Amino acid sequence: MSPTPEWVMMGGEDAESYKKHSAYQRALVEAANEKINEVISASLSLDMISNGFSVADFGCASGPNTFVAVQTIIDAVEDKYRKETGQNPVDNIEFQVLFNDLSNNDFNSLFRTLPSDRSYYSAGVPASFFDRVLPKQSLHIGVMNYAFQFISKVTKAILDQDSPMWNRDIHCTGFNSKVKKAYLDQYLVDTKNILDARAEELVPGGLMLILGSCLKDGMKMSETYRGIVLDLIGASLNDLAHQGIIEQEKVDSFNIRLYIAEEGELRQIIEENGKFTVEAFEDINQPIEESSDPKIFVASSRAALGGILSAHFGAEAMRKAFELVEVKAQQNFSRIENAKPGMQYLIVLRKN
Amino acid sequence: MSPTPEWVMMGGEDAESYKKHSAYQRALVEAANEKINEVISASLSLDMISNGFSVADFGCASGPNTFVAVQTIIDAVEDKYRKETGQNPVDNIEFQVLFNDLSNNDFNSLFRTLPSDRSYYSAGVPASFFDRVLPKQSLHIGVMNYAFQFISKVTKAILDQDSPMWNRDIHCTGFNSKVKKAYLDQYLVDTKNILDARAEELVPGGLMLILGSCLKDGMKMSETYRGIVLDLIGASLNDLAHQGIIEQEKVDSFNIRLYIAEEGELRQIIEENGKFTVEAFEDINQPIEESSDPKIFVASSRAALGGILSAHFGAEAMRKAFELVEVKAQQNFSRIENAKPGMQYLIVLRKN
Repeated sequence: MSPTPEWVMMGGEDAESYKKHSAYQRALVEAANEKINEVISASLSLDMISNGFSVADFGCASGPNTFVAVQTIIDAVEDKYRKETGQNPVDNIEFQVLFNDLSNNDFNSLFRTLPSDRSYYSAGVPASFFDRVLPKQSLHIGVMNYAFQFISKVTKAILDQDSPMWNRDIHCTGFNSKVKKAYLDQYLVDTKNILDARAEELVPGGLMLILGSCLKDGMKMSETYRGIVLDLIGASLNDLAHQGIIEQEKVDSFNIRLYIAEEGELRQIIEENGKFTVEAFEDINQPIEESSDPKIFVASSRAALGGILSAHFGAEAMRKAFELVEVKAQQNFSRIENAKPGMQYLIVLRKN
Repeated sequence: MSPTPEWVMMGGEDAESYKKHSAYQRALVEAANEKINEVISASLSLDMISNGFSVADFGCASGPNTFVAVQTIIDAVEDKYRKETGQNPVDNIEFQVLFNDLSNNDFNSLFRTLPSDRSYYSAGVPASFFDRVLPKQSLHIGVMNYAFQFISKVTKAILDQDSPMWNRDIHCTGFNSKVKKAYLDQYLVDTKNILDARAEELVPGGLMLILGSCLKDGMKMSETYRGIVLDLIGASLNDLAHQGIIEQEKVDSFNIRLYIAEEGELRQIIEENGKFTVEAFEDINQPIEESSDPKIFVASSRAALGGILSAHFGAEAMRKAFELVEVKAQQNFSRIENAKPGMQYLIVLRKN
């Protein structure tokens, strides 16, 4: 059994790319803009600025949301600098932006679409953010946008049909408590690694901005819009297996490396890590409603998940799966419409 | 008339890629290895090492030579550190390598082939090295391997058939003194920009290693192997234009952005720039003899020049041009065999 491949967004710029279908992720940054400004103004110490200031996006994908996120941060830093020193930041601070993602991310697309009016030096950092990716104390502000939800691997028992932890579904629906515990255990390991790595990379007083979605305490993934997406993809893959188009074994060995935590779990993870002070933990009102239109539903989920499905099942099977997802989305219209809302958050951590 | 596109090596890993045909460039680094060790040992001050040490390759292409070049440098620094401090560098120095090339370089290939046993943090820097690409004083050692020979543009007059500087050839053969002066003037501007930019990026005492080929004073480009390559490509393009396969105007507007300087010109450029001390200027004995076998001649020149020809004339015309080059290489066998040797150099500069 081949394990589920590592996550990679659909690269390029065509109609199916992540780039064309990531408005939702972008909207969160834009909605959080004011709060980001406020927190940077209150929590960032200008003492840490020598003549350079580096900003990193961990899990940046191939653009363009990352450009919005890093520019939001740079604008906020410049604004604070201007207000507090009365000087023009352009004369005194050189910004460097480090775009981090896995080495199989489409960095070529990212680099070719860098904003032409940017006022920062750019670098791509091809490495897994579960480990250190930058030198010690070389970073001033880091950001993760919908990336703090990934896990580095799926525990073996989840893929083992003889184990009580075996997961029939392709993700952690929340309904099987043993599966949920296995996912959470892995998530605790991975998020500790992420926080430890960032703590070493950040200068003292440096900030980490984490944007993403979580569940309200006690809510189950499959009750939410994104959980329903994954349920329908799983059902479609099983249909394809029954039709003999893909192997059932391939479906059984496929488990999405994603864990949408509950709010309380996130708070506990940060507290137990102990290397950061929580400067903000905000429920951001995400202005884009998730569409129950089956076409849009499919297009946006394919942009995010098509890459990983292609890698595991092949491009043709991926295409067929999403055709079935569209049919199922029509059949499940009211379930999608009545999905419970997830919580979209901005967490700002200051390195102790 | 569209101008000659910017230089880009053939990406990817297939039979025609730069990656497969860059043994010549790699051999220079390997031949210069001992001298690089010696100069780093003698000229590098360990005082500049805090806990981080950054190395950049300007014009790195898509690999794998760049990995050899940066590893050579890191090994030399570690060696010096070990000898002088008696401590293990692994415990005390974190290396970061910055791979720089134009944003249309194939960084995806580069990132996917990073050596798995590397002991440094990696980053790709997509930007033109004629300008600043890194923050101020953030670099300890930079290297350019066969990249100090590019010019950023071709002076307009060279492409103007009514100008006395009009160049019938696709490169600076050395036989037309007005053309040579126009190329040299541009080269003086560009190399000054390169040296000025690196001087700002390097920490005081930082080193710049420049490897490449130059002409012995008074020698003409078309008397050398690489000059003959360009002459034959030019002749082949003109043949295709006469056959009506490509437009003559497209050939006339095509001028390779390359200037192989004379040794004396290089020395003068560095001296007049004034921001560096010359720690070494060595004639390196390049162990790979350039092959007069027409097949090898064509394969290696296509790997280096196919990308730029494709961009200007299209892939099909590029392919046809190299078919003709192979015929011409057979016809010009003795001219190729008797080409005058260029000088392969290692220049080491220390930032004042």
